[in-house]
Amino acid sequence: MEERAVIDKIKHRYLHQAEGLLKGIGDDCAVISDSGSLCWLLSSDLLVEDTHFRCSWHDPFLLGRKSVAVNISDIAAMGGTPKFLLTSLVLPGHISEDWLDRWQDGVQSMLTEHSCLLVGGDVSGGKQLVVDIMVIGQMHPDKVVYRSGALHEEDIYVSGNLGSSAAGLALLQNEEYDWSEFSEFIAAHLNPQPQVEIGRFLAENELATSMQDLSDGIATDLSHICTASKITGIIESDCIPMDGKLPQVAAKLSLDPVELAVYGGEDYQLLFTAHPDNREKIQSVAQQTGVQLTKVGTTFAGPPQVFLESNGRRTDISFKGYQHIS
Amino acid sequence: MEERAVIDKIKHRYLHQAEGLLKGIGDDCAVISDSGSLCWLLSSDLLVEDTHFRCSWHDPFLLGRKSVAVNISDIAAMGGTPKFLLTSLVLPGHISEDWLDRWQDGVQSMLTEHSCLLVGGDVSGGKQLVVDIMVIGQMHPDKVVYRSGALHEEDIYVSGNLGSSAAGLALLQNEEYDWSEFSEFIAAHLNPQPQVEIGRFLAENELATSMQDLSDGIATDLSHICTASKITGIIESDCIPMDGKLPQVAAKLSLDPVELAVYGGEDYQLLFTAHPDNREKIQSVAQQTGVQLTKVGTTFAGPPQVFLESNGRRTDISFKGYQHIS
Repeated sequence: MEERAVIDKIKHRYLHQAEGLLKGIGDDCAVISDSGSLCWLLSSDLLVEDTHFRCSWHDPFLLGRKSVAVNISDIAAMGGTPKFLLTSLVLPGHISEDWLDRWQDGVQSMLTEHSCLLVGGDVSGGKQLVVDIMVIGQMHPDKVVYRSGALHEEDIYVSGNLGSSAAGLALLQNEEYDWSEFSEFIAAHLNPQPQVEIGRFLAENELATSMQDLSDGIATDLSHICTASKITGIIESDCIPMDGKLPQVAAKLSLDPVELAVYGGEDYQLLFTAHPDNREKIQSVAQQTGVQLTKVGTTFAGPPQVFLESNGRRTDISFKGYQHIS
Repeated sequence: MEERAVIDKIKHRYLHQAEGLLKGIGDDCAVISDSGSLCWLLSSDLLVEDTHFRCSWHDPFLLGRKSVAVNISDIAAMGGTPKFLLTSLVLPGHISEDWLDRWQDGVQSMLTEHSCLLVGGDVSGGKQLVVDIMVIGQMHPDKVVYRSGALHEEDIYVSGNLGSSAAGLALLQNEEYDWSEFSEFIAAHLNPQPQVEIGRFLAENELATSMQDLSDGIATDLSHICTASKITGIIESDCIPMDGKLPQVAAKLSLDPVELAVYGGEDYQLLFTAHPDNREKIQSVAQQTGVQLTKVGTTFAGPPQVFLESNGRRTDISFKGYQHIS
């Protein structure tokens, strides 16, 4: 069974509605609300040793930071503010007290950056290190940006650069290689920064019609938006923002930089759609926040598919790409 | 590192307060609130293969039920109503699609019994089956029953019988033994029932001054209450409620029935304290709900310790007992 097949199976069994539930399975977060003026965003993300990370590459401090970052990124993808965290840890025998201390230092450093609090969790022994984190965010219910809000003839944007994390992973997998001159790619993979500020800004100003974080690569993540919004998305290969050194790293690794950017996962940037009337506003948001926002494509009326346009040729890339390190 | 040492370490690093946080680490649930009239209860519980369960004993349907039950039990322990669930699954190669279907049937059956909804989660491959569930409950913030509310000279109660789950586990561990005549003990271990109704009733009527669920045995779980409430607890051995057949099972297994009841975990009954003036009201709750409620001891002014009184002798049993099947 593939991960997506399992999730689809679960999703189709539990598509129920209930009082207080604004959104169940099928977006970056579930959204719940009581009679208050704000709603709560709920999400959980698993990190499993040798599937999502290797202890030999991943310093415990940076793994602690990343454990929190990938979860906070799901809150950012709805436009919310992360507030509380629950951490569950399965600890095998090779994990020392010192390792755990440094992992917690990393968790705390990312929590502090986002004024977020650890409020609970669980711990158990086991054969393999597993970190499962649940994050709770908050925002105004009218401002939540779902995957399902994109219309046709809209612009498709991404924050930051794509492919850097995938290049970093490829460097780490090439163990004999001295990657000191490309440390920014290693950092992009081991220490990603969730884009909370930009997500909140886009949501509060109602600039994004749909949004999601880039955890599995734009090919797959845009497919989620196109499926939920019932539209076609076309990405222009030439518009994809990349670190200036990505072609050089890709050449060293005999990889294609566009493939790293399109199919590579774990950039934890934001992917969103916006009405073309808002182009100037979006560029002024980019200037105010200092986060690069790049138009990479356009939505069209059509079946829920994603195409990559390159030199006049269109390739169907729906749900192609990243499957973590396993 | 023992599980409790790890939790203590984490707890002492994160004892912060924040707006909207009514209770952080240190109770059955974290409690958060926005401007609404109700608050939310948050808890997560890990079940790890070969630490908390064995696939050879645990039918996937019953494991699905128990995965949810142990989490809902934490909501019951605060007096709340479970509302939403997130499930994270690490699936090793030996888990078939059929197994997963039946596990989900079990999850759904327990959710349906409690009008609770699955709203999210995550799935990953891995070496060992891990189920991590996060449950979100709801209640009135003024009615939440914390571990810290017990005063001295109060009654200590438990719901149901103690030791049945531990006896069931001991029977399962004795693989050559035919336990068909003791199937109720096997059921107590494999298919526990969270005591939501009684917890809610006690909270809404302000009858319990402190409460917690019995997951690690009364010796340990009452120690949590005594530590949080800064009191001494004394349990009277003769008052502990047991299934009428527990002595017979214990004799077959060469175990002491009182030890099973005091140190055995996973009964998922409720443990609570109450003012002696409420004895009649509590017995009328028992009659209305059909759930047996038994006074097993008394609290005293003193250091945070738990004693077992038997034949005029007092033994310190603070934090003694259950460590799951590992």
